[in-house]
Amino acid sequence: MSDPIKKFVDVFSSLPGIGPRQATRLAFYLKNLGTNNIQEISDAIVGLNYLKTCSECFSTHYQNQPQRKIGAPTEASEKTNADNLCSTCSNTQRNKGLIAIVEKETDLISLEKTKKFNGRYLILGDLKKDGVLDSVQKLRLNSLKRSIKRDLSGQAEEIIIAINPTTYGDINANLMLHELKDYAKKISRLGRGIPTGGEIEFADEDTLGGALDNRN
Amino acid sequence: MSDPIKKFVDVFSSLPGIGPRQATRLAFYLKNLGTNNIQEISDAIVGLNYLKTCSECFSTHYQNQPQRKIGAPTEASEKTNADNLCSTCSNTQRNKGLIAIVEKETDLISLEKTKKFNGRYLILGDLKKDGVLDSVQKLRLNSLKRSIKRDLSGQAEEIIIAINPTTYGDINANLMLHELKDYAKKISRLGRGIPTGGEIEFADEDTLGGALDNRN
Repeated sequence: MSDPIKKFVDVFSSLPGIGPRQATRLAFYLKNLGTNNIQEISDAIVGLNYLKTCSECFSTHYQNQPQRKIGAPTEASEKTNADNLCSTCSNTQRNKGLIAIVEKETDLISLEKTKKFNGRYLILGDLKKDGVLDSVQKLRLNSLKRSIKRDLSGQAEEIIIAINPTTYGDINANLMLHELKDYAKKISRLGRGIPTGGEIEFADEDTLGGALDNRN
Repeated sequence: MSDPIKKFVDVFSSLPGIGPRQATRLAFYLKNLGTNNIQEISDAIVGLNYLKTCSECFSTHYQNQPQRKIGAPTEASEKTNADNLCSTCSNTQRNKGLIAIVEKETDLISLEKTKKFNGRYLILGDLKKDGVLDSVQKLRLNSLKRSIKRDLSGQAEEIIIAINPTTYGDINANLMLHELKDYAKKISRLGRGIPTGGEIEFADEDTLGGALDNRN
C-alpha cells in the first residue's frame, strides 16, 4: 500500500470501532471524494479543538464567545467561570442536588433524551477494565465532593451512579459508592431488567434476576 | 449537541460504514485525545491529497518525486508519463496481456494478496445499482480499449471481469462483456462456489448451483 494510505490506515484503525479493513476502504473513498471534501472533513476534526471542558461536570461543550463592547464592564473572574460551564451546569432550572455520574458524553446524551432527569452530571471518563479509578477520575470525584461541600452544604439529595451494568462497571460502582457515601442522602444505580421489546425467554439469568428484584 | 460536534457528526456519518452513533462516539473520543492527536488525524486525511491516479489502471497510488540534479537531462514527456503509472502498471515483469477489471482499490489489494495474478488491472469505480455504466466508467473502458489497441495489437490475452457476483454486478458484467468482446481472446469472470470454510448446508441455491457448475 502507498504511504499516505498506510499512514491513514494506521491512524484510523486505532480509533474505536474502526478496523484496518474499514480504514482502508475509507481512505480510498475519501481520496475519490476529492480535495474539497478532504478539506471539509479535516476541518471538522480540527474544529473539535474549539470545544471546552465544563469545569463542573467535565463534559465537552461549545460556546460562542459573547460579543463584548469595548469599555463595557467585564467582571472578569465571574464571567470566565460562567464561560467554562456547559449549558446543563449553567441552567438554573436544573436540580443541583441530584447528580448522575456517567462514563462518557454519549451516556449523558442518552439520559438527556429520556427527558426524565433534571439534575446535573459528572463525566467520569472511560472506566478501566481492572476496576481501579485512574488519577483523572479520582480528581473528578474530588471536584464533585468539593462542589457538594460548597454548594450543597456537604450532602447531595441523591447521586445516581449511571455506569453500565457490566462486571467491571459493578466493581467501579462499588468503589464510588464507598468514596461518596458521606456526600449524599441516597446513592442509587440505574434499574436492571428486561429491555423494552425484549423477551423473557432470551434474557440471561442476571438480567431476569434484576428484573425480579426491580418488579413494580 | 454543541456545534463542532454536530458538524463532525454530520460529516462523518456521511462516510461509508459510519453511522451517527459511531460518529458521535468518535467526536468525543477524538476531543479527549487532545490537540496533538487531532492534528495528526487531520494530517492523515490531508495526506490523501498527495495521492495520484495511475493513468493506465486508474488506481490510487503514491510516488515520491524523484530527486533530480539540476542540469541533468530530464526527458520530460516520458518521465512525466512514467511518474503517472502505479507500481503495478510500471512493473515490466507483469503480463500486460492479462487484465483484471475491478470495482475498487480494495478489490485490487485482495486479488494481489492471493499472489495468483500477474497481470494488470483496470479500476472501474463503484458500480451503480441501476446496471448502467456512468460516464467515468465509460471513459475508463475506452482508455482500456485504446491501450489494448496500442500495446497489444488490438487483442488482450484475457480480460477477467472481477466484479462482485451480485445481481447488479452480473448486469454490469454482461454490459462489459458486450463492450469488450472484440478486445480479448477470452473474457472470464471469477469462479462462483462455496467459500473455503463454508458449509454446503448453509449455502444458498445460487451459490451451490455455481459450485456445481464450477466443480473440478
